[in-house]
Parts: sequence; structure tokens; C-alpha cells
Amino acid sequence: MTIAVIGTGNMGAGLARMLAEAGSDVVIGHHDPAKAAALAAELGANVEAGGVAAAVKLADIVILALPYGAVADVLKEAGDLKGKVLVDISNPVTPDFRGLVVGHSTSAAEEIQALAPGAKVVKAFNTIFAQLLPVEARKGKALQVFIASDDERAKDAVSRLAASAGFEPVDAGPLANARFIEPIGEMNIHFGFFLGKGPSVAPAWVQI
Amino acid sequence: MTIAVIGTGNMGAGLARMLAEAGSDVVIGHHDPAKAAALAAELGANVEAGGVAAAVKLADIVILALPYGAVADVLKEAGDLKGKVLVDISNPVTPDFRGLVVGHSTSAAEEIQALAPGAKVVKAFNTIFAQLLPVEARKGKALQVFIASDDERAKDAVSRLAASAGFEPVDAGPLANARFIEPIGEMNIHFGFFLGKGPSVAPAWVQI
Repeated sequence: MTIAVIGTGNMGAGLARMLAEAGSDVVIGHHDPAKAAALAAELGANVEAGGVAAAVKLADIVILALPYGAVADVLKEAGDLKGKVLVDISNPVTPDFRGLVVGHSTSAAEEIQALAPGAKVVKAFNTIFAQLLPVEARKGKALQVFIASDDERAKDAVSRLAASAGFEPVDAGPLANARFIEPIGEMNIHFGFFLGKGPSVAPAWVQI
Repeated sequence: MTIAVIGTGNMGAGLARMLAEAGSDVVIGHHDPAKAAALAAELGANVEAGGVAAAVKLADIVILALPYGAVADVLKEAGDLKGKVLVDISNPVTPDFRGLVVGHSTSAAEEIQALAPGAKVVKAFNTIFAQLLPVEARKGKALQVFIASDDERAKDAVSRLAASAGFEPVDAGPLANARFIEPIGEMNIHFGFFLGKGPSVAPAWVQI
């Protein structure tokens, strides 16, 4: 399994490092391959780098670690996504981070599926702050990752990936449930940044 | 503190019983006062009953334990709501329970605030299944109740009410955050009823 991580920001770097440490082969993709190479060099042995299309071509699973607003342009340079598992981790936030730019009758994940109809889009990781990606930051707790997709095999593959890094994957149903999972991510942003809890919180479903 | 519970369904009966057992004076209100009286008789000592307007008049806090679609009509017979704390517990679900009829740029709570501009609307309890209202059903666990309002004193009053019944009240910010809290309630319905977890689950924010 090779995982492409598209993006070198906090989430991209954090996911690439986390997955490489968990034993996956990782390739970082960026519009500017030099940026991807710099991050790959920092992360070490089983991490490669390239342009977006090269990273996608090498990968079974492609993680879009990008602001939602940047996704459409990056997908244009991604090449053939047919059959690829395409992971959307975004919260489609407004510029002030207090609301969402899409919702209710659609979601970022569904919009991305429409842009990449041949890909198997999976919503995941949007409720996990970058600060909680390093396994040591989670202090042995198995935080839940909500995983939604219309493709069961893609959902299974991303669930195994999450579990390999110490998370508890939770089947969150079809991709359209991103309409609920993205507001959960937005509420997480409110708790973390506007309501004083800090970026060490995450949502979970508890069973009595 | 007198609490009016408007509605005699699973949530109304459950909340009325729970709050009466926790020591609040409860008055049940219903369009058909005989229905309210039958439930009050079942619940015992500190529970009264009446029509909607009578229950509202007696109460400091009014809990709308109604399907969202029934709220507008009931508010028309509620009389003067000025200054009352008005608690919206609804998930504005579609007929098949799989989606929401309002969201993203508004919420049930905000629509109810617009219908009752003099009231202090508080969103609460929409992520707690009726099955988890009896304190014994919670087996000693303090489930979180997310409480959103633009009125801090109203939020405090509902927080104390939730705590009196063994819940952990969580300040979820302004009323507009119902745009995120209602999708959380809808995801809870998906987990409970469509994804096989059953009605003994509830969302929580965990702190690492």
C-alpha cells in the first residue's frame, strides 16, 4: 500500500509522518515538487516526493490534505484518479473559521466526489486536529475517526490505515453523512479555538 | 424554578419524569389538557398539567418536547413568551429520519428564535435519546449535553437543570452553533438506528 499525501501543511506533514511511522510507504505530492521533497527529506526513509500527478500515480490511497478551497485546482493537476481511494479530510470553513461554506444539502466530500467521479471518495480525519496526529500526543488513547464512503472496500482500507496509527475507526455510513460529519468538525473547531478547550479535544460516540 | 414540558411523547414524558425526580416543579402542557393531566397523574407529586398557555404562564423554563414540524403551531397557542427561557431539543429530521429539513445557513433553534423573538432560546438535549433520560439508564455515566444560546443566564439555567439530572452540561457557544449541534444529533440518529449501535449511544467531546 502506497499512500499519497497531497499537501505539506500541518495536516499533510502530520499525516505523512504518522503514516510513515506506522509503516506505510508514503509519497508526498505538491504543485511545487521541491516543497514535497523538502518535507520527504525531513521525514526520512520510507517517504518519497513528487508533483501531484506523480504522487497520485504511485499511490493506492490519495489523501487530500488541503484547504477545501484549494481542492478543485489541485484535482485538475492530479491526472487519472479512476479507482483510487481519495480521502477528503477537509472542513470547508468560512474565512473566519466560524462557519461552513457548504452544508445541509451537500458537503465538501460530495462536491469532491462530483469533481472526481471515478475516484472512491472517503471522508475521514476531519475531526482530528493536527496537534493530535503524532501518536505520542494521544497518550495511549484511541481517538475515534469517523469514516464515511459509498465504497465499502475503500472505507475498509482507510479504516485499516487509521487503526495502524492508533485510532479507532468508526463506520459513519455513506458519503452523504459528510453533511453531518463536517459540522462535527466545525463544532470541534469551535470547542478547540473559540470555546477555550484547546486543540487537544476530539469528538467521540460513547456507548452506555 | 418551574419547568414546563410541552409535549407528552417519549422525550416529553422522559424529560418530565427525569426533572421531577431531580426535584424540579414540572408542569406538562398539551393542546389537549387531558393528555397532559394523564401523564402528570402517572408521574406523581410535583407534576401539574394544563393547556399550553397555562403551562407556559406557570413556568420559568419552557421545554419544547415536540417534533420540529409541530413547533410553529404550538407556539401560536403558547401566549406570552417574553423573557421565558425556551428550550429547543429538536432534531429537524426529514420524514425518513436520514436528513435534516433545515441546516447550514440556519437551524431549528434559530427558526424558533425568529418565531418567538422575546424568548431566550436555548438549544439542548437534542443529542440524548429518550432511552437515556432515566438516570438509571445512564449507569452512573455523566453524558454530555451541548447547550447553545445567545443568553448567558438562560444557558446557565439550562446547564444547572441538566446537571441536576446527572448530565455534564457543555457550553456549546451561541445559538447559531445549533447549525452544527443539530447535525450532531442527526449523526447520533444514524449511529443509533441506521448503523447498528442502538439507542444507548451519545456524542461527547473527549480531552486528551
